[in-house]
Amino acid sequence: MKFVLEYEGTNYHGWQVQPGLITVQGVLEDRLSRLVKEEVKTIVAGRTDAGVHALGQVVNFLTDSHIPLDSWQPAINSVLPEDIRVKEVEEVPLSFNARSSALSRRYRYRILNRDYPSVFERNYSYFYRGEMELDAMREASRCLLGTHNFRSFCASIYERENFIRTVQDITLNREGDIVSLEIEANGFLPHMVRIIVGTLLDIGRGKLAPNEMRDILSAEDRKRAGRTIPARGLYLIEVRY
Amino acid sequence: MKFVLEYEGTNYHGWQVQPGLITVQGVLEDRLSRLVKEEVKTIVAGRTDAGVHALGQVVNFLTDSHIPLDSWQPAINSVLPEDIRVKEVEEVPLSFNARSSALSRRYRYRILNRDYPSVFERNYSYFYRGEMELDAMREASRCLLGTHNFRSFCASIYERENFIRTVQDITLNREGDIVSLEIEANGFLPHMVRIIVGTLLDIGRGKLAPNEMRDILSAEDRKRAGRTIPARGLYLIEVRY
Repeated sequence: MKFVLEYEGTNYHGWQVQPGLITVQGVLEDRLSRLVKEEVKTIVAGRTDAGVHALGQVVNFLTDSHIPLDSWQPAINSVLPEDIRVKEVEEVPLSFNARSSALSRRYRYRILNRDYPSVFERNYSYFYRGEMELDAMREASRCLLGTHNFRSFCASIYERENFIRTVQDITLNREGDIVSLEIEANGFLPHMVRIIVGTLLDIGRGKLAPNEMRDILSAEDRKRAGRTIPARGLYLIEVRY
Repeated sequence: MKFVLEYEGTNYHGWQVQPGLITVQGVLEDRLSRLVKEEVKTIVAGRTDAGVHALGQVVNFLTDSHIPLDSWQPAINSVLPEDIRVKEVEEVPLSFNARSSALSRRYRYRILNRDYPSVFERNYSYFYRGEMELDAMREASRCLLGTHNFRSFCASIYERENFIRTVQDITLNREGDIVSLEIEANGFLPHMVRIIVGTLLDIGRGKLAPNEMRDILSAEDRKRAGRTIPARGLYLIEVRY
């Protein structure tokens, strides 16, 4: 079975099961297992960090359950907490793997850019007072398109064999006080979107020139890039297969 | 002093101080009193119910504090919880009374009208699957404009001397899956907006004809109107003076 999920990450220690902590995977597998009366293990498209949200997360799992296809969504939603919802249910061939079959993931980062914070946006965007020169940020972001070594934009505490990723699309738009960056790639390194946005903010306020983005990328050194901005503005919005 | 406030009502037992319960007024007066080191009592424009939000609530209070005008907003926001924010601060003459000086209050009710609920809208709108015939609802709502006895749209547990209110504006719009009703009046009775919207939903799904709204209004009988829909979709958005 394949599920498309929406969740608010605010109250979870991220996706992945961790002993003693409440995680989205932990809650989903617990409720699923009780529903089908067998132990269920899920495979996920993107292991989101603590506080990161999802509009279109994808998981798959094996089950012997005879629940009719139409009954899955109401059944699982009735036992899930209200900050996790199954949006779509689909039967998939055994060869389908939410993680390895994915062609691309698309993330959105939302910034509230004005003088004062919003009560209603506090868990759903990053509040940022500084100047945001969108044209400079767009110009800088273009050098990320294509296949590169993204080590400069990977949390340094993670060991990786391979920092090569392909960015297929990157857009930046303002709608009122909300600035949204969207980025689609075949895969993402830990904290990659949050470090990219943190670096683009330095360009947006003139601390760095747009062409310095290319130098940072080719340095393959986390210390050259900007800070990791908070998880609460980040959403996994779509996974393509 | 006059404050314009934004708050999320989800975690509060409404505006008004109640013994043993956490209320917006209780928290605000506690933090204000500690800030100015004297007991502060506030007067509010609209006493919102539990779960009701505000984008433009107004309060006033007396203080001997010598805090400079520019320092008030950062000072009070730094000690308020993150679901309450002061948006504007103004010095006002002693004759100003947030409640009695108000010419009108404007409320918005937000409905998420689609097949499945949204994780991100769960505390900020009312999820409603049913049909919403907006033209019929608009036609029905027009009879509320002007000065009427609104007893049919007042929670029956409240004793009132006077059910006469003047509705100055009422609009209904859809943007994507969100239907918003806005209503402006010189004052509102308890649950008035929520009962009006509950009744309009009966018209929107064809249970009542648009012209029955006038009969319900003139009946001056709470039992004739529709149900009181949940607080979480309701926002006090503006108070005019």
